[in-house]
Amino acid sequence: MPLNKGFLLASRPQGAATESNFRFFERNIGEPGPGEVLVRNHWLSLDPYMRGRMDESKSYAASQALDEPMIGGTVGEVVASNSPDFKAGDKVVCANGGWQLYTIQKPAMLRKVDDSKVPLQAFVGPLGMPGVTAWVGVNRIIQPKAGETVVCSAATGAVGTVVGQIVKAKGARAVGIAGGPEKCKFAVEELGYDLCVDHKAADFAQQLAAATPGGVDRLFENVGGQPFALTMARMNDFGRIAVCGLIASYEGAQKTSLSDMRIMLVRRLTMRGFIVTDFLPDWPAALGELSGLASTGKLKWRETIAQGVESAPSAFLGMLKGKNFGKQLVKLT
Amino acid sequence: MPLNKGFLLASRPQGAATESNFRFFERNIGEPGPGEVLVRNHWLSLDPYMRGRMDESKSYAASQALDEPMIGGTVGEVVASNSPDFKAGDKVVCANGGWQLYTIQKPAMLRKVDDSKVPLQAFVGPLGMPGVTAWVGVNRIIQPKAGETVVCSAATGAVGTVVGQIVKAKGARAVGIAGGPEKCKFAVEELGYDLCVDHKAADFAQQLAAATPGGVDRLFENVGGQPFALTMARMNDFGRIAVCGLIASYEGAQKTSLSDMRIMLVRRLTMRGFIVTDFLPDWPAALGELSGLASTGKLKWRETIAQGVESAPSAFLGMLKGKNFGKQLVKLT
Repeated sequence: MPLNKGFLLASRPQGAATESNFRFFERNIGEPGPGEVLVRNHWLSLDPYMRGRMDESKSYAASQALDEPMIGGTVGEVVASNSPDFKAGDKVVCANGGWQLYTIQKPAMLRKVDDSKVPLQAFVGPLGMPGVTAWVGVNRIIQPKAGETVVCSAATGAVGTVVGQIVKAKGARAVGIAGGPEKCKFAVEELGYDLCVDHKAADFAQQLAAATPGGVDRLFENVGGQPFALTMARMNDFGRIAVCGLIASYEGAQKTSLSDMRIMLVRRLTMRGFIVTDFLPDWPAALGELSGLASTGKLKWRETIAQGVESAPSAFLGMLKGKNFGKQLVKLT
Repeated sequence: MPLNKGFLLASRPQGAATESNFRFFERNIGEPGPGEVLVRNHWLSLDPYMRGRMDESKSYAASQALDEPMIGGTVGEVVASNSPDFKAGDKVVCANGGWQLYTIQKPAMLRKVDDSKVPLQAFVGPLGMPGVTAWVGVNRIIQPKAGETVVCSAATGAVGTVVGQIVKAKGARAVGIAGGPEKCKFAVEELGYDLCVDHKAADFAQQLAAATPGGVDRLFENVGGQPFALTMARMNDFGRIAVCGLIASYEGAQKTSLSDMRIMLVRRLTMRGFIVTDFLPDWPAALGELSGLASTGKLKWRETIAQGVESAPSAFLGMLKGKNFGKQLVKLT
């Protein structure tokens, strides 16, 4: 019976989350029950939505319970199975494998994956929830047409990485927003964004205007804050805005406000907030398309890897501040 | 050759509009040219969108030109016609008949109406642009289902009057917002709103919460300002918001801001700004439906009538402050 290690939610944040909100645990994982599957997590995905779950239920989902392992998507390997659908050695994605080394899951919560052509951790990145989020936001919400200008914030993040590439594949113009020159360079040179504007630059507003001389037709918003407001002011008639994330506001210190909603009326804009789990019927098509691209090397991405489950809290807190560069992972093996 | 009288736009407002922004004129109307039609305006419609046109082009439409007659929908009677499609005595709606007694129009800008069953001025009210605005916003934007709770601001205004009645016809619950107990009483007793909340009441937020105990599914926003923000905070999952007007912001003194856009994400809301002239293909169906209701007495509305073209500026400025009760008209005969 293997020794499990990981982190529980110890307390809810007052303002910004801190390491003291998490509590390390070690305990035997136990045996899988009838029909259940024991999985050794190899990779933990760290994602902004987790911050919302740490609060008292103000978000779209129920709160993460106190004293339970932190929620988190993982990908790993079946160790023992009481389900006819899974056998030891199968590689599986767990929608909530948690911030821990081992997890016992019902088969319905697992998805078998083939890592012969792509690295296993891709299934919690571009071939997992973040990739599908990008696909849904582009194809179901902003629906860019060839020649339109699409702005995407957090352009090198797990979602924005994929947004830029599928926007470009549609023949639209992709303008990224990212934090710092290194990320902006990567967005353009590796991810195929036409341009990328540094939101930390003092003249961000001027740079954004120069990058979108014909205005903005579609906005894929992952961050919020002042860059969001400045991009909104550049929207063209009949523009569409997907609100995918407002990470700038998750710590409570700075709410994402829009000071003049009249732009919605004057430009006849449509703004829609969405979460990917509301689009379950789209997952197979999205994953099929993204897997096809990835297996032929046409989908690019970058990872920031924290080593060992012990590093999860600090990696997570860093990600909330934009310290990651690309998909934030924790390597658990 | 009849003497025309009316108002030009003399200057653009600095902040709130004032009577000095308008200049009275008297001059001969002239003769209709080849194919043109001379119309005697009987009724002028005063609508909030006019305030936007007075500004330098920040709005969806071109600015109203200086020294030209103020823009305005009218309904009147053909006096002389050089078009085979119109003859003297025809009753016509002019999309822009202007703040004046007479207008010369191309036939394409006129719509013949039958006032045998409804009063002529209804064609610039519930059977005109405001009625179609309500129809489009309800049927194309918020799309309420039976049992859902719909909130509509300016519930007794020209648009809100119709919104409540078509929302109720769909079996949804209609909650109005209006300014003062008299308007709220009218909204409930005459227009069929289930409840109406007074935004001038000190405890508006509490009253709104009490009126929408299950939250708000659909919002038809005509006003903006703080009541809008408070209603947004009560939106349910997958709620839809039509931004039809933000009259509270039109004078520039108070912008309509939303201090926490996270509600868009948390509740997966869709917000869409619209103007009715973007929905021209819907006009015949909308007018057909509304005319059917009106001709059998099933559509209720109320009018505030200013007498004589000379009263147009003060009536308009009053309307921007909510002094009208129901559709604001100017009787030109």
